[in-house]
Amino acid sequence: MKKYDKLVTNAAGRVVPTIINGEEHIPFMGIGKYKPTGRKYAPRIASCADYPEDGNKLVPGLKEALIKSGLKDGMTISTHHHFRNGDLIANQIFDIAHELGVKDLRWYPSASFPCQEHLIQYLEDGTINRIEGSMNGPLGRFASLGKMKGLGVLRSHGGRYQAIQDGEVEIDIAVIAAPTADAFGNANGVNGDAACGLLGFALGDSQYADRVIVVTDNLVPFPAIPWQIHGNYVDFVVEVDKVGLPEKIISGTTQITKSPDRLLIAEITAQFCEEAGLIYDGFSYQAGAGGTALSIGNYFGDILRKNNWKASFIRAGSNKYPVQLLEEGIVGYILDGQTFDLEGVRSMRENSNHVNTSPFTSYNYHGKGNFASLVDIVVLGATEVDVNFNANVVSHSDGYLLHGIGGWQNTLFGKTTIMPIPLFRDRIPVIRDEVTTMCAPGEMIDVVVT
Amino acid sequence: MKKYDKLVTNAAGRVVPTIINGEEHIPFMGIGKYKPTGRKYAPRIASCADYPEDGNKLVPGLKEALIKSGLKDGMTISTHHHFRNGDLIANQIFDIAHELGVKDLRWYPSASFPCQEHLIQYLEDGTINRIEGSMNGPLGRFASLGKMKGLGVLRSHGGRYQAIQDGEVEIDIAVIAAPTADAFGNANGVNGDAACGLLGFALGDSQYADRVIVVTDNLVPFPAIPWQIHGNYVDFVVEVDKVGLPEKIISGTTQITKSPDRLLIAEITAQFCEEAGLIYDGFSYQAGAGGTALSIGNYFGDILRKNNWKASFIRAGSNKYPVQLLEEGIVGYILDGQTFDLEGVRSMRENSNHVNTSPFTSYNYHGKGNFASLVDIVVLGATEVDVNFNANVVSHSDGYLLHGIGGWQNTLFGKTTIMPIPLFRDRIPVIRDEVTTMCAPGEMIDVVVT
Repeated sequence: MKKYDKLVTNAAGRVVPTIINGEEHIPFMGIGKYKPTGRKYAPRIASCADYPEDGNKLVPGLKEALIKSGLKDGMTISTHHHFRNGDLIANQIFDIAHELGVKDLRWYPSASFPCQEHLIQYLEDGTINRIEGSMNGPLGRFASLGKMKGLGVLRSHGGRYQAIQDGEVEIDIAVIAAPTADAFGNANGVNGDAACGLLGFALGDSQYADRVIVVTDNLVPFPAIPWQIHGNYVDFVVEVDKVGLPEKIISGTTQITKSPDRLLIAEITAQFCEEAGLIYDGFSYQAGAGGTALSIGNYFGDILRKNNWKASFIRAGSNKYPVQLLEEGIVGYILDGQTFDLEGVRSMRENSNHVNTSPFTSYNYHGKGNFASLVDIVVLGATEVDVNFNANVVSHSDGYLLHGIGGWQNTLFGKTTIMPIPLFRDRIPVIRDEVTTMCAPGEMIDVVVT
Repeated sequence: MKKYDKLVTNAAGRVVPTIINGEEHIPFMGIGKYKPTGRKYAPRIASCADYPEDGNKLVPGLKEALIKSGLKDGMTISTHHHFRNGDLIANQIFDIAHELGVKDLRWYPSASFPCQEHLIQYLEDGTINRIEGSMNGPLGRFASLGKMKGLGVLRSHGGRYQAIQDGEVEIDIAVIAAPTADAFGNANGVNGDAACGLLGFALGDSQYADRVIVVTDNLVPFPAIPWQIHGNYVDFVVEVDKVGLPEKIISGTTQITKSPDRLLIAEITAQFCEEAGLIYDGFSYQAGAGGTALSIGNYFGDILRKNNWKASFIRAGSNKYPVQLLEEGIVGYILDGQTFDLEGVRSMRENSNHVNTSPFTSYNYHGKGNFASLVDIVVLGATEVDVNFNANVVSHSDGYLLHGIGGWQNTLFGKTTIMPIPLFRDRIPVIRDEVTTMCAPGEMIDVVVT
């Protein structure tokens, strides 16, 4: 199987392959130009007759669960990244696959992190053919060097859900590491030592995968409430000592920036939004977890207080700053895709207005609408932006793929998208004549603040 | 199209058709004998490009919504029955269909009630070909008299979800009456004048129907939280003055029985459960909303208090009695399929341990397990039981179909199923040589208390 074949020029003027890993892919045709046809992926019909009557789906270990799930050559194995750099399960899956002599797996994580550098040996020896999912750090560098047997594919959070829903990617086995679960497979992220808030990135995997394994280090009696993942989709449950390292799970950039340059950019961005009339009673915004974005969120808070206004909702990866605004009562709801600190987790556990979302609700473009286009102000970062407003978020100017794509592309459908970015990072220009990797065409980006 | 054809004798010894309304149906083969094959129903892939960017799916009225949904002859239209005898929407749907001259519709309600007697004219004039769903009262009598053009089909709550999921019934248009919704279509049953607690009976309809219309009399700004129905499945939203009559929505049998006979049966039932060792610290039970079942629940409460035990959960249609046990702390959770009074609604709104469920979580036999088989004690009513423990819940001894089947068949998978019933009702024997309609073979029923 060739990695790729048949290069064409897409609507953004980039030369791209149409056959990737032996499968046909439609090149970018322009925003909103592609119209899906056909029907959603139809998973196999299960029967309760094949599952224990007492609801106890526990098996002794991950290896047994993978064997019972029929692990074999060429399968697609999915994981989620709510544990970020504190994940302990993905490495074990492929250790077991290697031990069993299974080859040519497609790993379909919602994102991969440096803690999974361990898997490079399996990308080299053919246990894993390729990663289809964001690659942060060493795995991205490995792929950039052309060392991966198959071709890496990055999908946005929405694009990943869409690929599952539409049957573009058929998941054979989904492994869902869960901070809390019961023996029936109901699972959530708000309780337990490895609490990560929610499990939304694994929702599509649970709904559509042929076999679903829940792995937890906090097994509770039925029912594990809230059931963010429904046990009715789950085949096997595995109890382990530790699913993740709490200190690394809660590791987002959760401090306001201290850099005077970035603080200035943040202030100018907020000022622009205010003067352009984008902030009003009932407005909404998307706040990233980066230091600059957090700072902008605080300026938004000041503007709300000053005018005695209330924001209707924040679309977020949450942490203590949005939570403060929610608890202060100047924000109605946090619609949260990913919690970045313990305050975010606590708030989601305790506050019914801090709502767990998923790529299905927020980003799936092949739904009957999604939330992304309802957001008034979307503040986004970028590794590069060019003079035509095209933007890059995954690679550096040296061409190395080092960052995940996240929901970045999906959020571009917000009403006003703003990129507050410095002119230089580490002496390398960020504003360029042409971006190295085009993640979004300039028409999707409204404002660059620098 | 013939109503039915080709009679055979099924595994329960009853003579049944295999072709019903032109479609082949597999006769009952014995408990757990039928093994499903194939794949779930695959709905059409939608695209956000076809939905308003601002998320506003409001259309001026139900008629417009039905026309935009492509209402035409022979379609299947679904509704839910969370409003029970206070529903105001189902009648309007078919008034509109009649006005538009549409014929031969299949109405697929989760149940129908006397308030929909209005629809008999449309069953007579061919607007509606048949009802596939429980028929309480006049509609059941009409069907029993052989007056319906097509053949009525009753499915249990679990069987209904299963039929949707498996593609046995393809819903063209689902109309979901909602006590609260936003313009995007997110909807819930905990708020608003017509609050009914939850909308679980409409879950499958929202997931699988080609077109989904949400009708509400309490339109709130986005986001309507909790989102029991996801707007991402919804095509159109309609605002009306009134979706239901609150005084009739909350109308279950929500008082402890005053009949000395039935109180005695309740007491004996509870005593049996205690002496047989079925009640223990952490046990679970299914409580119906009938006067006898409520009374048994209260006796269970006494037994828990006496022993200083706590029940792990109640599977319920809820009302004030189970809510009292939950708030007292002697029950861990209420897993609720249907709220029967305002106390049930309030508790579901306020208490995160009062959980809204659906036929998917509770009853779908074509899932990877469901909750029904996890329940220790299931207390059920019946219109008749025979000397072989076969039971009937839908018709009287005169043969008239007058009652819904609900989740009754699904709950039979609980660990111990008990039917506390009087020997006579209105001078007609309830214990008989042979039941009129067989809803369950005797092997599923463990205990009859009379």
